[in-house]
Amino acid sequence: MKNAPDWIARSVSRLRSAPPDAADKTVPPAASAKAAAAPRTTHDRLQATLRRGQEALSPRALRRVLTDLQAVIQPRTSELEGGRRAQVVADWYAQAQPAERHDLWLLMCEQFAPDATRFQSARQRYEAAAGTEEEGQAEITLRRALVSPRTRLLQRFAVFPEGMRFLVDLRAELLPHLKSDKRLLALDAELEHLFSTWFDVAFLELRRLSWDSPASLIEKLIKYEAVHDIRSWADLKNRLDSDRRCYGFFHPRLPNEPLIFVEVALVDSISSSITPLLDEAAAPTDISRASTAIFYSISNTQTGLRGVSFGDSLIKHVVETLCAEFPRLRTFATLSPIPGFRAWLGKNAPAMLNRFSDKQRAELAREVGAEPLQAPALLAAADKALALEPKSALRQWLLQCAAHYLARELPDGKPIDPVARFHLGNGARVERLNWAGDPSSKGQKQSYGLMVNYLYDLKRIDKHRSLLAQGKVPASKDIESLCP
Amino acid sequence: MKNAPDWIARSVSRLRSAPPDAADKTVPPAASAKAAAAPRTTHDRLQATLRRGQEALSPRALRRVLTDLQAVIQPRTSELEGGRRAQVVADWYAQAQPAERHDLWLLMCEQFAPDATRFQSARQRYEAAAGTEEEGQAEITLRRALVSPRTRLLQRFAVFPEGMRFLVDLRAELLPHLKSDKRLLALDAELEHLFSTWFDVAFLELRRLSWDSPASLIEKLIKYEAVHDIRSWADLKNRLDSDRRCYGFFHPRLPNEPLIFVEVALVDSISSSITPLLDEAAAPTDISRASTAIFYSISNTQTGLRGVSFGDSLIKHVVETLCAEFPRLRTFATLSPIPGFRAWLGKNAPAMLNRFSDKQRAELAREVGAEPLQAPALLAAADKALALEPKSALRQWLLQCAAHYLARELPDGKPIDPVARFHLGNGARVERLNWAGDPSSKGQKQSYGLMVNYLYDLKRIDKHRSLLAQGKVPASKDIESLCP
Amino acid sequence: MKNAPDWIARSVSRLRSAPPDAADKTVPPAASAKAAAAPRTTHDRLQATLRRGQEALSPRALRRVLTDLQAVIQPRTSELEGGRRAQVVADWYAQAQPAERHDLWLLMCEQFAPDATRFQSARQRYEAAAGTEEEGQAEITLRRALVSPRTRLLQRFAVFPEGMRFLVDLRAELLPHLKSDKRLLALDAELEHLFSTWFDVAFLELRRLSWDSPASLIEKLIKYEAVHDIRSWADLKNRLDSDRRCYGFFHPRLPNEPLIFVEVALVDSISSSITPLLDEAAAPTDISRASTAIFYSISNTQTGLRGVSFGDSLIKHVVETLCAEFPRLRTFATLSPIPGFRAWLGKNAPAMLNRFSDKQRAELAREVGAEPLQAPALLAAADKALALEPKSALRQWLLQCAAHYLARELPDGKPIDPVARFHLGNGARVERLNWAGDPSSKGQKQSYGLMVNYLYDLKRIDKHRSLLAQGKVPASKDIESLCP
Amino acid sequence: MKNAPDWIARSVSRLRSAPPDAADKTVPPAASAKAAAAPRTTHDRLQATLRRGQEALSPRALRRVLTDLQAVIQPRTSELEGGRRAQVVADWYAQAQPAERHDLWLLMCEQFAPDATRFQSARQRYEAAAGTEEEGQAEITLRRALVSPRTRLLQRFAVFPEGMRFLVDLRAELLPHLKSDKRLLALDAELEHLFSTWFDVAFLELRRLSWDSPASLIEKLIKYEAVHDIRSWADLKNRLDSDRRCYGFFHPRLPNEPLIFVEVALVDSISSSITPLLDEAAAPTDISRASTAIFYSISNTQTGLRGVSFGDSLIKHVVETLCAEFPRLRTFATLSPIPGFRAWLGKNAPAMLNRFSDKQRAELAREVGAEPLQAPALLAAADKALALEPKSALRQWLLQCAAHYLARELPDGKPIDPVARFHLGNGARVERLNWAGDPSSKGQKQSYGLMVNYLYDLKRIDKHRSLLAQGKVPASKDIESLCP
Repeated sequence: MKNAPDWIARSVSRLRSAPPDAADKTVPPAASAKAAAAPRTTHDRLQATLRRGQEALSPRALRRVLTDLQAVIQPRTSELEGGRRAQVVADWYAQAQPAERHDLWLLMCEQFAPDATRFQSARQRYEAAAGTEEEGQAEITLRRALVSPRTRLLQRFAVFPEGMRFLVDLRAELLPHLKSDKRLLALDAELEHLFSTWFDVAFLELRRLSWDSPASLIEKLIKYEAVHDIRSWADLKNRLDSDRRCYGFFHPRLPNEPLIFVEVALVDSISSSITPLLDEAAAPTDISRASTAIFYSISNTQTGLRGVSFGDSLIKHVVETLCAEFPRLRTFATLSPIPGFRAWLGKNAPAMLNRFSDKQRAELAREVGAEPLQAPALLAAADKALALEPKSALRQWLLQCAAHYLARELPDGKPIDPVARFHLGNGARVERLNWAGDPSSKGQKQSYGLMVNYLYDLKRIDKHRSLLAQGKVPASKDIESLCP
Repeated sequence: MKNAPDWIARSVSRLRSAPPDAADKTVPPAASAKAAAAPRTTHDRLQATLRRGQEALSPRALRRVLTDLQAVIQPRTSELEGGRRAQVVADWYAQAQPAERHDLWLLMCEQFAPDATRFQSARQRYEAAAGTEEEGQAEITLRRALVSPRTRLLQRFAVFPEGMRFLVDLRAELLPHLKSDKRLLALDAELEHLFSTWFDVAFLELRRLSWDSPASLIEKLIKYEAVHDIRSWADLKNRLDSDRRCYGFFHPRLPNEPLIFVEVALVDSISSSITPLLDEAAAPTDISRASTAIFYSISNTQTGLRGVSFGDSLIKHVVETLCAEFPRLRTFATLSPIPGFRAWLGKNAPAMLNRFSDKQRAELAREVGAEPLQAPALLAAADKALALEPKSALRQWLLQCAAHYLARELPDGKPIDPVARFHLGNGARVERLNWAGDPSSKGQKQSYGLMVNYLYDLKRIDKHRSLLAQGKVPASKDIESLCP
Repeated sequence: MKNAPDWIARSVSRLRSAPPDAADKTVPPAASAKAAAAPRTTHDRLQATLRRGQEALSPRALRRVLTDLQAVIQPRTSELEGGRRAQVVADWYAQAQPAERHDLWLLMCEQFAPDATRFQSARQRYEAAAGTEEEGQAEITLRRALVSPRTRLLQRFAVFPEGMRFLVDLRAELLPHLKSDKRLLALDAELEHLFSTWFDVAFLELRRLSWDSPASLIEKLIKYEAVHDIRSWADLKNRLDSDRRCYGFFHPRLPNEPLIFVEVALVDSISSSITPLLDEAAAPTDISRASTAIFYSISNTQTGLRGVSFGDSLIKHVVETLCAEFPRLRTFATLSPIPGFRAWLGKNAPAMLNRFSDKQRAELAREVGAEPLQAPALLAAADKALALEPKSALRQWLLQCAAHYLARELPDGKPIDPVARFHLGNGARVERLNWAGDPSSKGQKQSYGLMVNYLYDLKRIDKHRSLLAQGKVPASKDIESLCP
Repeated sequence: MKNAPDWIARSVSRLRSAPPDAADKTVPPAASAKAAAAPRTTHDRLQATLRRGQEALSPRALRRVLTDLQAVIQPRTSELEGGRRAQVVADWYAQAQPAERHDLWLLMCEQFAPDATRFQSARQRYEAAAGTEEEGQAEITLRRALVSPRTRLLQRFAVFPEGMRFLVDLRAELLPHLKSDKRLLALDAELEHLFSTWFDVAFLELRRLSWDSPASLIEKLIKYEAVHDIRSWADLKNRLDSDRRCYGFFHPRLPNEPLIFVEVALVDSISSSITPLLDEAAAPTDISRASTAIFYSISNTQTGLRGVSFGDSLIKHVVETLCAEFPRLRTFATLSPIPGFRAWLGKNAPAMLNRFSDKQRAELAREVGAEPLQAPALLAAADKALALEPKSALRQWLLQCAAHYLARELPDGKPIDPVARFHLGNGARVERLNWAGDPSSKGQKQSYGLMVNYLYDLKRIDKHRSLLAQGKVPASKDIESLCP
């Protein structure tokens, strides 16, 4: 910082005062040899940003937006006034073009980073204090040095009435750009960090969604349902019928949006097919006698909250709530899709074939009418899986492959199928495969129509989790015996 | 504790070895030459704790509590389960002795600190990445390394129904011990940091408190009122009468507690005395004609939220709300105590005397009947300030000293009087001194019965703040002309 | 039933002998010559009922139901217990056959009539007291003598939770039988009387229905909409869009049912066609600039409340509410069907033709291609009214007939068209006829697609009503000039 | 008023000629010989009113008020507009003098009576129709003829927001005048009739009143408590403590007023004294173990609703509610005052003495020190009842007299004590007398400090009522054995 104070002061005062145009590009050409060691100031960052000259906004506009942003966290401003100024930026954003929004993200990232000088001195003090009485105070100072101006900036955006909505939507828009523009990572991380604090389970409210809920609210189930599309209001009404329950987590600052919701059917035994559950004409079960709760759909609704997980707590909370209302309930299970199975088998069919005995392979070859037996022929025949007879060798092979896929494939120590990863991570076990459980075209495309039940055995949640941590998928005997 | 350190250390280190954070086991056996460079592990910290042997709990009990705490953030535990386990600790705490509670605080501080090894490597990466594309990612890693296990621990305590109450009360209990035990600073800082996030103005709701509010709620006004004690339900009812407004900030997790509240009287002109405002027999003003809102009492209620400031936002929010309801309101001012004046004058009377002319001092001497004039005699005479005639020289002197105290004394760049510091910091100005504004014995003890109005001139809030930032107290002409 | 009348009569009279109302046992020993003079006792009535022997229920069942009914108003029973006993009868009713329900109605009618003896003595006292100090007391006694046991009976049915629903539904079921069975009139009248007291406007609450209302509630709009059918949830959502308002009257004992509701569009000028109002794709108006509120649909929902009128109060209440929310609104008008026009013209076309000049008739003949001009040919041509050119003589003729129909036809001193009768009775005037206002097949069937606006001119409501009371329909100049 | 009756009468009759009810103008020119036979028209009534000339209002003012009243039920006026006009009268009433208010009552009574002509013809038709098919219709016509214009008038007063409050207060003001002015009876009866319909239990809501209720609401308990005065907010808080319940009936049109409320203590056994229940310092019972609910205070709040009884339903409803919340509750009883005992004994002591044996009387004489034993001496000694020893003969005598008073004195077939009449009428029995149950001065004045428990034995409610209907008070063995 020593060598630059003068021109820095000048350029900043220029930026903040009058039409800037070209001036800010005149940056000292090369960073010194000790670039890594020297702390980078906010000023340096701005220069770097401007040097690129890739912005959609004119320098004048860019400067104005930056000024508006800085006003938000102006130190003598109350939170309420800061919120009002944040709303000015949000209003601008609402009518801005995508490329202009991208400029805003970069400004937020690069101009509001932690103060490197302050961090470095705090870090030195922290390390010097290790083991002494000063350690606590030093930790505090260090943590404060890392509270970036960006944090305060985002906190002010949460203040105005639609501010939380704004931030969640902003991140949803930002996420697809992270791969192509690493500079945005810090903003994303800051948002994720804030969201994980603000949307901590401690601040969520479990609410039942029913046919007596506002139409504008349950309409969102149609919009957000991610597993089995809701085709109409009649379909929706059926899912909120007397033998169903639907619960969502809500946050006080997004009061009309479920952050996640789960659809539950109260039935007599573990469901093997989604068809009767979605049949609008089916008579409702007598819920006073129901023994089993089937979780047949779980959907996250806010892309912008990626990385903040609600699902596990939601399921546990719903199980508790159901137990209180229906003391007869004994079994809690899902009826779940296997979204990655067909794609996985497309790549792994040859390897899977090797796991089978000659006899089985001969039967398969006979049934498919292709000798020598080859994966492509098998997969082609599987296109018509729903038509297969119960005794079909191909059907048996598909079931066994699916069992293997769910119970044996843990490439990174975790189940490969995303739905399996979620439920097994929560402490469930793989319970049963259901042939033709989802005969819809989506079901066929994902998993040849197969569905799976995950069982939540309340007494074994911890045990199941320990097993999984050791790299072993908890599964029923049926599933185990299917694995080739 | 003396006889047990070893096995406790062992068992605790064992307890911590299973979780993924287990890296700390591999401690460099001997600290390197420079202690500052060597990271201190959790293990080291525990050793240090135990070596002191000052705990109130038996080693066995200490271990059990630690185990319970670790269970809360056990990585495979859902937030909900974590919350339940936190409640177990809270239940134990509820019946623990003060010294045992102190043990818990220390465990929370010392056994759940950030991971030093992880921090050091994240810090190195961060510094190396400066100016490169990696900078964003490195910032993220660094910030995560500083998220102490303590943070997660406290977050889980917020999950169970009375958890937020527990944390706020815990900090209130902890605060008085910070001076004598610096080790607790980190826990306090962590709590303050979490509270400032959780209780951000974005998450507070402004609610009116009225005579139609639950009795159990407004009863708390009696409990928490800090400026003018509420003597009875009749007094309370008077303060919630038709010409009064009372507003408080509420948080969703502490729904039955105002965090701060302000009492407002709607009147015709700036009030000069608290007496008519507290007169239960006085007829209410016709509020449809009121021109002036007087903020005559502001009270924080939660000691445990110290450092999280609500007052400024509350006042601004209330002003907005009042403007919407009463478009005729033109003037917003306080009627405030001057709590530190008398004590300050006790020390500074001689210096103040020097600021006065010989003539004035002669009058004072005559009036007091003490020649040569000395401070003690003046102060003794001031004991009966309320009885002084309007033309009394002593009365004039007290008023001038008070004006000086409010408008000129800024030892650390901020007003010395705590109430002045608050309102001036919010952008108000010193408007008027009121002789005998508070004739109660408390009023006399604090300020010889003097009260002051601070004026919130909505158009000059920013200007006033700028002035103050330059070390100049904004004040009315009357006040300026009083300053000796 | 034939063989049992005697013992039924006995057992019933025994049943009724204990209660204090037992006066009826002491039947005047010999009926006087004129039956009309002799009061008929409850006992006589029962005999008469049984003598007919037309009941669907067996004598035993009939007796049991009667006993159950009597238990409801047993004098030593509290209202709450009476309500519980009424629920027993309601439960029986829920599973009874139509003919059995008819039996219950007759029992309610005939066995719980006012006590004739008591009435006669009260009447004599009343007439004797005329002009004396006793008059007030005598009026009281007389009114009490007319409070039939039936009144108390029905009041008890209102006590149990679903009781009001039961009574309203019972009357809806009863109404179609009144013509064929005059004996039921008294029960109907008693219900109507009670309903008009219970559902007095004083006890109704105006509530807005919006897309934020419970789905189960607004679903009822689909069910009850009587003017322009709601075809889908998209149609419904359009009618609850930001430029619409929908209000209903609700009663505390039927909390989830609007008793009547009105749909309003906020627009720039008086609407001339229903088509854009029902167009789901149309962009909503900017309501902050709307000058005109169009009431385009009003529907009663409860057949069982026939004779209890809400419409007038609803419209006045909604006008007030809209004025408060939208101070710019200047014009309040309807866009209404003319449901009886086509049927009326079918009968009155020849007479109407006579009102037209020879020239007009010649033009009509030419256009229709039928000489000599005759009504049937005209009406046949009118089948394709929607295709008529603006200058068509037939179109002009239809408009003139409609103007006459609305503004001149008052057979019983009231407008002949039911919708006209309602709005004109409320003080509106006929404002404008709209060609092709409702091109739906229903619109064509009712009125050749014509619609009409009634204007609610708030300053002339009383004046319009006075005019109508004098037999003159208030109408705009345009309508007047159309009348042939 | 003297000089004006004629023109007033004329103008008023003119005023009334326009409305449809104008039939009354056509008075039969010559009254028949028997006044009773000739119907009295509204006109006659007005004449009669004016002839008296006792009004406080000037003729002009009287006419204006009458015009305002008539406008309320003007037939072409909607209910809402009628309500608005009623409010005009209510506003006038609010500022009127007592005597002027009395004028309004008379106008309401006399100028809005049923139409005698219409009544007579309806009556004749009704009697002619007896036994024919026309009977039902004739009953309807008759009932309608008795619906006085006064009914409609009062119904409109119920429409405006504070209208129900107005009517209830009006009747409370009217009641004390009934004895001295019989003309007001009809208005009172009409109000009572309307109130008994409007405030039917079917329309009341049972709500719990607790320390979490609005202060403005529970403040009313202090105001209305009629049995044991609430002395302070601390007393009130004690009665709403965790081991207490307080319930009230509420009506939708008087939302902030309990119509009646009951205070209940949850205890271990039947309470024998009010003292511990009102002891603010007493620790609350563990309600999870309570076996007994003690109703220790029931208060009606609205004088204006006299004759509309809520108490029986309230107690039954509260018992149900308590049973649902506390399944362990087995015993429901009161702890009640005996308000009439002392006054009754003052008159009946000699007669009571005669019921005692010579031996008892001798003991009494000895204890009192008065021979021969005379009632006055006994009563004088009883003044210090609270000081009597357990074995005192006088104490025993008082207990026996009280037992007799409660269980044997039924002058008109009903218990003489008003509280006994209420609870026994509800089906309770006299359970136990409690010496010094209420040692307050009020308790001593009413009943020498005695209190009584009435037991609600849910299985014997009906049986107890039957007993009472036979003139026998249900009582415990203890009470029976006490009766002399």
